[in-house]
Amino acid sequence: MTRIPVMEIFGPTIQGEGALIGRKTMFVRTAGCDYRCSWCDSAFTWDGSAKDEIKQMTAEEIWNQLYELGQDCFDHVTISGGNPALYSSIGNLVNLLKEKGIKVALETQGSKWQEWMKDVDDLTLSPKPPSSHMETDLKMLDLIVDNVKVLKNASLKVVVFDDVDFQFAIDIHERYPNIPFYLQVGNADTTLKDDDILVKNLLKKYEWLIDKTMMCPKMNDIKVLPQLHALVWGNKRGV
Amino acid sequence: MTRIPVMEIFGPTIQGEGALIGRKTMFVRTAGCDYRCSWCDSAFTWDGSAKDEIKQMTAEEIWNQLYELGQDCFDHVTISGGNPALYSSIGNLVNLLKEKGIKVALETQGSKWQEWMKDVDDLTLSPKPPSSHMETDLKMLDLIVDNVKVLKNASLKVVVFDDVDFQFAIDIHERYPNIPFYLQVGNADTTLKDDDILVKNLLKKYEWLIDKTMMCPKMNDIKVLPQLHALVWGNKRGV
Ligand code: SF4
Ligand code: SF4
Repeated sequence: MTRIPVMEIFGPTIQGEGALIGRKTMFVRTAGCDYRCSWCDSAFTWDGSAKDEIKQMTAEEIWNQLYELGQDCFDHVTISGGNPALYSSIGNLVNLLKEKGIKVALETQGSKWQEWMKDVDDLTLSPKPPSSHMETDLKMLDLIVDNVKVLKNASLKVVVFDDVDFQFAIDIHERYPNIPFYLQVGNADTTLKDDDILVKNLLKKYEWLIDKTMMCPKMNDIKVLPQLHALVWGNKRGV
Repeated sequence: MTRIPVMEIFGPTIQGEGALIGRKTMFVRTAGCDYRCSWCDSAFTWDGSAKDEIKQMTAEEIWNQLYELGQDCFDHVTISGGNPALYSSIGNLVNLLKEKGIKVALETQGSKWQEWMKDVDDLTLSPKPPSSHMETDLKMLDLIVDNVKVLKNASLKVVVFDDVDFQFAIDIHERYPNIPFYLQVGNADTTLKDDDILVKNLLKKYEWLIDKTMMCPKMNDIKVLPQLHALVWGNKRGV
C-alpha cells in the first residue's frame, strides 16, 4: 500500500519533548495505534473520535501540504502518531523528504520494526511504562535498538507517572546503557481546559520527577524533561 | 595562581537551559565577571552583594565538596559563573574531574580564551545581545569558535529580550552556521518573588519567541528553549 493514513499535518512549531526539545519542526501525525495507553494524549488518533479527519495521502500529497504550511521556514519534519511504524508506506515519505533536503524524525513506542526506520535522522523510541497498562515486547525493542545502532541520533524516552514507572525507566536505561536516555513527566490531565492549573500540576510533577532522579545513582547520565508544548499551549491540538 | 574564586557549589540538579537542558549535573559557580549585563540573573557573582560567600578554593577542595554533596549520584559537573573563563586555574579542576571520570561542561559568554577550554566535554558560548548593554568582541568569539571546532559538543546560546536581540541572534547564527544554535527566553523579572506570575510571564515570553522564530526562514536549524529552573524554582538561588 502506498498511501499513509494521516491524522493531521501542522507547523512549523517546536518539538516539545525528548532529544530534540525546542527544535523547529513540522509534524505529520499518522492515524492508528497498536497500543491503547491508559493516559494516551493522542487518543484521537485511534479512538474513532476524529476518524472523519483521517486522510489517505501519498508522500507527494503530504509534501505539498507541508510546503504550503511551512514554505521556506522549515528544514525538519517529525513523523509522529499514533504509531507511524505500523506503515511500510512511510518509507516513501522519508525518501521524498530526504530528497528535498529535509531532516526527518520519527517517534514510536518501539513495538514494530520497519526497514525505513534506518533512514531517519532522529529516532525516538518510547517504550510505555506499567501505568499505561501496556506490555513492552522487549525482544522487539532489542531488535529495533540493534538495528538502529547505526543511527547517530537514536534515543530512548520513558514517560513516568509513578514509582513503578520510574523502576521501569531504570530497567530500560540499564538494558540499553549506550542509548541517550530521557525521562519525561506524564500529563495526567489530558482533558483539562484550565491552562493555569495544568501548568501548576505539570511543574509540580516535574519537580517530583527531578527529585527522584537526583537521588538515584542509577540515573546519572540522563536528562529529565517536561513537555514544553503542554506548558505553553495546554492540551490544545495541532500546536 | 592555583586557587579558584568560588561563589557556590550545588547539586545534583538539572541543567535548566541550552544544549544540555534537563541533564543531571552538579554546578560550580565562580565569582567575578568582566561583563555587567543589564539583566544579569547572577549579578550576585560580581556586584558585591554576596562577596562574603566567595571562597578561594583549590581543585581538590572543590572536588571534595562536590563529592560530599553528590556522592555517587552524579557523573557531570557544570562550571558556570560569572565568567569562569577569567581563570587559568580552572584547568586544574577540569583535569581533576576528568581523572575522576566526571564529564565537564563550561558556560561562558565568550569574551576570554583559556587553553583548558579545549578539554571540556560540553561548551556553551553565550554572546550577549544588545539589550545587555554589552558589546560582543566578535574577533575573540571567532578565535574561540575556531579553537573549539575540535569539540564534539560546542554550542551557541543567545538570550533574546526584544526584536533587536533577535536580529543579533540571527547574525551570530549566520556567522557560525555549523555550531548548534540555541535561542533562549530572557528573564526580565530576576527579583520577582511571586512564582505564579513569573511562570506566566516567562511562558508568555517563550511563546512570543517561538512565534518569531517559526516565521523566520533564517532560523530553521535551531532550538528555542525556556529556562526550566526558573519555571520550576522561580528566582531561587542554588537549585
Ligand atoms: S503508543 Fe502512543 S499513541 Fe499509542 S496509545 Fe500509547 S501513547 Fe497513545
Ligand atoms: S556575562 Fe553572564 S554573569 Fe556576566 S554579567 Fe552577563 S549575564 Fe551576568
